[in-house]
Amino acid sequence: MKIKYLLDEEEIPKKWYNVAADMPTPLKPPLNPGTLKPLTAQDMEAIFPKALIQQEMSTERWIDIPEEVREILKLWRPTPLYRAASLEKALKTPAKIYYKYEGVSPAGSHKPNTAIPQAYYNMKEGIERLATETGAGQWGSALSLATCLFGLQCTVYMVRSSFDSKPYRKSAMRVWGAECLSSPSDRTNFGRQIREKMPDTPGSLGIAISEAVEDAASHDNTNYSLGSVLNHVLLHQTIEGQELKKQFDMTEDYPDVMFGCCGGGSNFPGMVFPFIPDKLKDKKDLRMVACEPTACPTLTEGLFAYDYGDTAGMAPVIMMYTLGHDFIPPGIHAGGLRYHGDAPLLSNLVHDGLIEATALQQTEVFEAATLFARTEGIIPAPESAHAIKPAIDEALNCRKTGEEKVIFISLSGHGHFDLSSYDAYNDGKLVDYVYPAELVKQSLAKLPKP
Amino acid sequence: MKIKYLLDEEEIPKKWYNVAADMPTPLKPPLNPGTLKPLTAQDMEAIFPKALIQQEMSTERWIDIPEEVREILKLWRPTPLYRAASLEKALKTPAKIYYKYEGVSPAGSHKPNTAIPQAYYNMKEGIERLATETGAGQWGSALSLATCLFGLQCTVYMVRSSFDSKPYRKSAMRVWGAECLSSPSDRTNFGRQIREKMPDTPGSLGIAISEAVEDAASHDNTNYSLGSVLNHVLLHQTIEGQELKKQFDMTEDYPDVMFGCCGGGSNFPGMVFPFIPDKLKDKKDLRMVACEPTACPTLTEGLFAYDYGDTAGMAPVIMMYTLGHDFIPPGIHAGGLRYHGDAPLLSNLVHDGLIEATALQQTEVFEAATLFARTEGIIPAPESAHAIKPAIDEALNCRKTGEEKVIFISLSGHGHFDLSSYDAYNDGKLVDYVYPAELVKQSLAKLPKP
Repeated sequence: MKIKYLLDEEEIPKKWYNVAADMPTPLKPPLNPGTLKPLTAQDMEAIFPKALIQQEMSTERWIDIPEEVREILKLWRPTPLYRAASLEKALKTPAKIYYKYEGVSPAGSHKPNTAIPQAYYNMKEGIERLATETGAGQWGSALSLATCLFGLQCTVYMVRSSFDSKPYRKSAMRVWGAECLSSPSDRTNFGRQIREKMPDTPGSLGIAISEAVEDAASHDNTNYSLGSVLNHVLLHQTIEGQELKKQFDMTEDYPDVMFGCCGGGSNFPGMVFPFIPDKLKDKKDLRMVACEPTACPTLTEGLFAYDYGDTAGMAPVIMMYTLGHDFIPPGIHAGGLRYHGDAPLLSNLVHDGLIEATALQQTEVFEAATLFARTEGIIPAPESAHAIKPAIDEALNCRKTGEEKVIFISLSGHGHFDLSSYDAYNDGKLVDYVYPAELVKQSLAKLPKP
Repeated sequence: MKIKYLLDEEEIPKKWYNVAADMPTPLKPPLNPGTLKPLTAQDMEAIFPKALIQQEMSTERWIDIPEEVREILKLWRPTPLYRAASLEKALKTPAKIYYKYEGVSPAGSHKPNTAIPQAYYNMKEGIERLATETGAGQWGSALSLATCLFGLQCTVYMVRSSFDSKPYRKSAMRVWGAECLSSPSDRTNFGRQIREKMPDTPGSLGIAISEAVEDAASHDNTNYSLGSVLNHVLLHQTIEGQELKKQFDMTEDYPDVMFGCCGGGSNFPGMVFPFIPDKLKDKKDLRMVACEPTACPTLTEGLFAYDYGDTAGMAPVIMMYTLGHDFIPPGIHAGGLRYHGDAPLLSNLVHDGLIEATALQQTEVFEAATLFARTEGIIPAPESAHAIKPAIDEALNCRKTGEEKVIFISLSGHGHFDLSSYDAYNDGKLVDYVYPAELVKQSLAKLPKP
C-alpha cells in the first residue's frame, strides 16, 4: 500500500491564500487598546514592518510569496502526507486515516512557515532584532531558526511552566543564536510587576506577549513577532492546506473530517482554510474540527467578543472567542494550547458555523499519542496529539457503523522536546483539569467595552 | 537552485548489497571466544536467529529485502539528499556540498535501517524479547521502535555516561514500550562485577555489549541484537548508499570525497559500500573518509588484529582495527563513537587502502555543527557532526585552490536528544582529549592470541 505522498520542492505554493476574501461575514476591525477605536496602520508601525501590516489588513484572495522565502522553505517543504496504515490496522477500522506531518522542519513544527516570512520582511525593512513570546517553545525555536537564517537577533520570552519543563527547547534556541528568557522576566516593566504580584505564577502566553510587545515598542531597532492569532500568521500557514489539497488529489480520496489542534490558531487554520471554498462554493460535506484542551477551552466555552490579545492590555483589541485576557490556564503539558483567545479569522468561521470545536483531557490525549507512536513510529508533540484522540474515536466509530470515512489528522510537530511530559504520563502523574468556570466568569467580566 | 532530491517510496532498494562479494582480500573468519577456533553457525544460535546468521556468513552479492521490512521502511525512507546551498554560501566555496539526512526516521538516525529487519527475523523465528546495548541511545531508540512495531519486548543496556547525560533518550524508548537500564547494571553477573570493581566507571559499549549478550544467552525466549560492527548490520545499512547513488544520478554530480562518522561502523559503511564497485571496477577517483573522535581513534591509531567484540570476552573474536577490548574511552559527548573496535568489513577495506580515516577533537566538531545548524537549519547529532568538520575543511581548501569539488556528508541523525552537549559547548565546558597512548598500549597487550 502506498503510504507516503510527496511533492517536489517546485510545488511549494507561490501564493498564500487569504480566507478573508471568502468570509461569509466580514471581520470586525481590530481596535487600538488605548482608545478602543479601529486600529490604523500607523498604530502598528511601532512593532510590525509595513509589509506585514499590509497583509494583516488585506482582503485580497491571493498574496505572492517572495522567492527568497520559498528558497528557505525548500529546506523541509513540501511536508509529507501519510496514510496511517499501521494505526488503521491496530484500530481494525474500515476508515482511512491520513496525516500531514509538519515535524520535518528543523524546528520540529509548522511554526517556521510563518517565522521565515516574518523574519524576511523585518530584515528587508532594516530591523535588527525580533522579540517574541513562546508557549511550549515551538514558536520560539522557529523564530530563532528564522532570524539566524536572515542574520537578525532574537529575544524569546518563554512561558515559565514550559521554560522549566522543557530545558532542551532553550538549548535549541541557543544553538540558533537566540536569547531565551523565562517569563515573567525581569527584563520588562510588566514582567517585574507580575513577578512581584504573583511570584509563583506558571506564566501564560498573555503575559509573555505583553513582555515581548513592551520590549519591541521600547527599542527602535526591534520589532515584535507573533506565532499565531494574527491574520498574516494564518495567511502564511495556508501553504500547508494548499499542499494538502494537491496531495489528496494524488490519493484520489477527499477528507470527510479534518482534525487539528488549536491554541491561538495557526496550524489548524493553515491546514483547513484552503478547503473553505470547497465547502462554500462546491458545497462539499466536510467537517473541520479544532481540538483544544479542556483546561483552556476557548472555542468550546469562551465568549465571541472584543478582548485584548495580551494580559497587560497593550496588544490590539480583537473580535474573537475568548476566556478573558487575564485568565491564566493551568500548567498543562500542551503549553502551546494555553492561550486565552483564538485567531479572529478562525473565530469568525466558528461563529458562522463553518468550523467546529471539541475539547479534550490531557490523559486521554497522551494515551492516543502513545498508540500513535507505537504504530506510526512518530512521537507526536502533546499539542498535536489533541488532534489524534478525536480522530481515533471517529475511526473506532466507523468500526461500529462500517463507514469507510476519510479522516485527516494535522500532525503539527514532534514531541522530542516533550519527553518529560510522556514520562509524567507513564508515571501516572498527569492531572486532568476540569474547566475552571468560576475563574473564567471573573475574567470575562473584565472585557473591554468598545 | 534545486536543493532537495527525493525518491518515491517504490525506489527503496529491493536487495541489500553485500560488499563481501567484492572484497580484494577475503575476510578472516570470526573465532569462538572460548576456543579461538573459527566460529560455527551453531555457536551463534544461542543469541541470533538463523536468517541473520546466514546473512552474517554470506558472500552473495545481493540479498533480498523482505516485503514486510520494506513496508515499514516506507515510514521514512527513502531519505532526502540535500544540496547544502546555505553552508556553501557561508563558506564562500566553489565546492558543491551534499548531505543525505537519516534523521528523518522516527528514532532520529539511520539505526532503524537494521533494527527493523533484525526485529523482523527474530519475530519470524518465534523470539519474544531482544536484549541490546546502546551508546548515545540512537541504537537503543531504534531497536525499541522496531520491536514495538513487530510486537516484541526489548531490554536496552545504555552506557552510563549517556544514560545520565541524555535522559530523554530513555523516555523515548519508554514511549515505544522498551525497558532501558544504566550499564553497568545489576541485572547481569558481568554488570554487578564491574560495578563492584569500578563503581565510578562511565561505562562503555564493550561492557554494555557483554551485559546484553549475557542476558540473551541466559534466556531462551531472548536474542541479542547489535547496531553496528557485524556483517549483517552493515549489509542492512547499504540501502542508504544505494539510494544515494540514484540521488546523485538526479544531481548529475558524482562525489569526489565522502565523509561519514564512524564508531563501530554502520552509517558510514552503509553509505559508502555501494560505491566500492565504482572504485574497483570503474576506477573512480573517489575518496571515502571515516571520521572518528581523537578520544577513541580506532582506525587512525588502532592495531589490525583479532580481538574480542566486548569487554568480558563473551562476544566473538573478530579481525578488526582495535584499541583493545578493555580500553574504556573518555566520556565524550559523541557517545555513539566510543567503541574500541571497528567492523571487520570496514577494517578490511581500510587495511587494503580503499577507505581512509581521520580523527577529530570534540570542540572543533561542535563548532562545525553550530555553523551547520545556523545555515542548513538542522541540529546534527554530535556523532554525525564528526563528518561535517572535515567536509568544511575540504570546502575551505577548495576556496584556496578554486577547485569545484563535490563533497558529500553523511548526516546520520539529529541532535534533539543531545542538546545538553551543545549547552556544554556553548558554556565553554567541553574538554578535548589527547589520545591516551599509554592506556591503549596496556589494553593492546591483552589481545587474544589465536
